[in-house]
Amino acid sequence: MDIAQTSPAADYPATARTTPTRHLERAHYDRATVHAILDADFVCHMGFVADGLPVVLPTLYARVGERLYIHGSTGSRPLRSATDGLDVCLTVTLLDELVLARSAVHHSVNYRSVVVHGRATRVTDEAELTLALDALVDHAVPGRAADCRPADAKERAKTAVLRLDLAEVSAKVRAQGVGDEPEDMDLAHWAGLIPLDRVIGTPVPDPAVPEGTALPGYLRHLG
Amino acid sequence: MDIAQTSPAADYPATARTTPTRHLERAHYDRATVHAILDADFVCHMGFVADGLPVVLPTLYARVGERLYIHGSTGSRPLRSATDGLDVCLTVTLLDELVLARSAVHHSVNYRSVVVHGRATRVTDEAELTLALDALVDHAVPGRAADCRPADAKERAKTAVLRLDLAEVSAKVRAQGVGDEPEDMDLAHWAGLIPLDRVIGTPVPDPAVPEGTALPGYLRHLG
Repeated sequence: MDIAQTSPAADYPATARTTPTRHLERAHYDRATVHAILDADFVCHMGFVADGLPVVLPTLYARVGERLYIHGSTGSRPLRSATDGLDVCLTVTLLDELVLARSAVHHSVNYRSVVVHGRATRVTDEAELTLALDALVDHAVPGRAADCRPADAKERAKTAVLRLDLAEVSAKVRAQGVGDEPEDMDLAHWAGLIPLDRVIGTPVPDPAVPEGTALPGYLRHLG
Repeated sequence: MDIAQTSPAADYPATARTTPTRHLERAHYDRATVHAILDADFVCHMGFVADGLPVVLPTLYARVGERLYIHGSTGSRPLRSATDGLDVCLTVTLLDELVLARSAVHHSVNYRSVVVHGRATRVTDEAELTLALDALVDHAVPGRAADCRPADAKERAKTAVLRLDLAEVSAKVRAQGVGDEPEDMDLAHWAGLIPLDRVIGTPVPDPAVPEGTALPGYLRHLG
């Protein structure tokens, strides 16, 4: 298995479709920004074209170096058609704040997003499949892959994993205050930011877990 | 302006692309379920096809009856090409819980999502444009549209609003516990649910808001 690694210092090259038509200052191409956003979430929206029309589905993903992995049933529509590769656009969006301006048009959202364009290919190498399946569990709950029963041969055969290399990638970040027009600054409307946060709650054990069972170490900070 | 209203009791008809290939029991077509999910969020992922390839971008949306509205600059790529209509897939996903099973393959997520397929068209009627722009502000912060300066003629000319009718629509909901195989139930791995919540924080006033200004009524529950 050969996982290509590019120098983490190098930027992803900007292309026509990763260059926004507006707010160029929000676009970022450096690996640190892109990786940080990808690592802060675990559900993406994957778009593909079916019969000439767009389809967007939410799906779990994991990042391993310069690769993203997603998975699904071998029977699912996008994965069935991905044997020879599937052109996808994979987008991850984190919402940070609502921005309430004095004027309607300057209402906005502070957010961090990553858009990845590319051709996803089916993972067939058994070692890479193991790595990807572990990563998909660990990306959402670090430490969990080592604390569950791994997929057996039958389960692996039913699971399709796609790989999408991070090559044509951009991040977009808005992290600013209210951007009202100077002539609106004296209007009496309240203006400001409303923080949005994703909160991870206290784990709820399955009823069959014996009473008094301690949370595993990688979940203990949530208990 | 004629906003078509269908009987809220009627289901959206299932079509080939709104019928999942797996987990049919998770699919819902009733308006109440679809509306509730759409009304619980305000950012969707909109997919469209550009030069034969998929593009997925996050964008704000609002629901008014059986219509969704999204907006953007008239200069932005998807909206520029939408004068004659743009085929889109608009997806909204709410995450509720991580599902940690004893076996790797049964790890899952409890979620509620809505996928809308259709041809989005540019709103040109001035009264509908006003309604849509107000709805886009009110959908994220109910009550806010009446408490900010509305867009003037120049700002309206720069804003493109697309309408997407709710016609080919489905919801998918997973809201269950851990689904392990019977033979795995005695494995010592912890299993259960980890709740995920979006929390709205305390509003932070813009520095230019006079000190001591009270929060407006529609934000007071956050103060």
